[in-house]
Amino acid sequence: MDFAKYFPIWDKLTPSQQARILDVSHPLKAKAGTVLHNGSMDCLGLLLIRSGQLRVYTLSQEGREVTLYRLFEMDICLFSASCVMPNVQFEVVIEAEKYCDLWVIPSCLFKNFMDESAPVASYINSLITSRFSEVMWLMEQIMWKSFDKRLAGFLLEESQLEGSDTLKLTHEKIANHMGTAREVVTRMLRYFQGEGMVTLTRGTIQITDPKALQSLTE
Amino acid sequence: MDFAKYFPIWDKLTPSQQARILDVSHPLKAKAGTVLHNGSMDCLGLLLIRSGQLRVYTLSQEGREVTLYRLFEMDICLFSASCVMPNVQFEVVIEAEKYCDLWVIPSCLFKNFMDESAPVASYINSLITSRFSEVMWLMEQIMWKSFDKRLAGFLLEESQLEGSDTLKLTHEKIANHMGTAREVVTRMLRYFQGEGMVTLTRGTIQITDPKALQSLTE
Repeated sequence: MDFAKYFPIWDKLTPSQQARILDVSHPLKAKAGTVLHNGSMDCLGLLLIRSGQLRVYTLSQEGREVTLYRLFEMDICLFSASCVMPNVQFEVVIEAEKYCDLWVIPSCLFKNFMDESAPVASYINSLITSRFSEVMWLMEQIMWKSFDKRLAGFLLEESQLEGSDTLKLTHEKIANHMGTAREVVTRMLRYFQGEGMVTLTRGTIQITDPKALQSLTE
Repeated sequence: MDFAKYFPIWDKLTPSQQARILDVSHPLKAKAGTVLHNGSMDCLGLLLIRSGQLRVYTLSQEGREVTLYRLFEMDICLFSASCVMPNVQFEVVIEAEKYCDLWVIPSCLFKNFMDESAPVASYINSLITSRFSEVMWLMEQIMWKSFDKRLAGFLLEESQLEGSDTLKLTHEKIANHMGTAREVVTRMLRYFQGEGMVTLTRGTIQITDPKALQSLTE
């Protein structure tokens, strides 16, 4: 089992902890679009990503979304175990954005390890702080950056993630990532098209001048 | 020394840890307005609040502020020790908003304790998660709530903190708390005045209809 290779602090676990974690962790495969965690209803456990991509987002009461961050291969998803984390007073939705091959470390085991092992608790500290940093970055973007800069940054990030200049993304989907309305996205994309930075066709956005988009974000 | 009474997990420290913490922690008094931590320049340590009030905020590149959260008696301020916390990729400013009587637990000691003690590391986890929750709450307010609702909530919170219906607050100061421009605050306060919810005089805001403000926030 190559679990040890993926679990970041494997060497800091005792042999008995290593045996327990191998004993109770189990694989999970999820198709793109699967919701793995939805607010406080679920408590699956820590998710260790072997391959794939998770999206973590919040929902407003009216059903509007904003993407908080994404997780990739070798990342650990924490908030799918939020039931055993004290003081988590917010709810997130976690979905498989691409096909995911995961390991699940059950919440109760994770809680035991945090209580008994300083290295595990410290490592979890560093994970929470990473996610906190991503949310702070996002909040600062929302507070201080105009929407054109944010959208330019989003398109470049997507292009990098997909390894392509042609993005198959509806305006609705972009609006859900960015926590805004579809009309706002459409208006800005048309402006970008007018400036020669993108070409819009039905269901796709082609980035034609990445340098111009990049300089817009700066 | 009544340090033990204020330090939340005193009973979970070993006698040797208790002795070390008493040995190196020191008192600090700060006048209202004192900046105790400014981004990555400082690394004072954990601050344990005996009395007073701290404000933690971020600054945009243009110098605009937004208050992330406040800390009160018996709270512990974490990010004044951010230098020893892995993965903190954001900067905050921490100021004494009222006269503060504090204990400082130096960063190096705090780091040692986190590395050797699962209860300390777990407790720090719960603190980070609390602050994370406050920032998530704030982000959701900024994303989904209109400014009138946010301002009504802010005025009621201030009134509760000060134990008074008369707030000595300039429009500029409110703008700094809420991450907006002074003109936006002035316009909304004048609207509130027109609706009979507040009375404005130079440098003060008197809340005349708290129920109406409350129902606005809901």
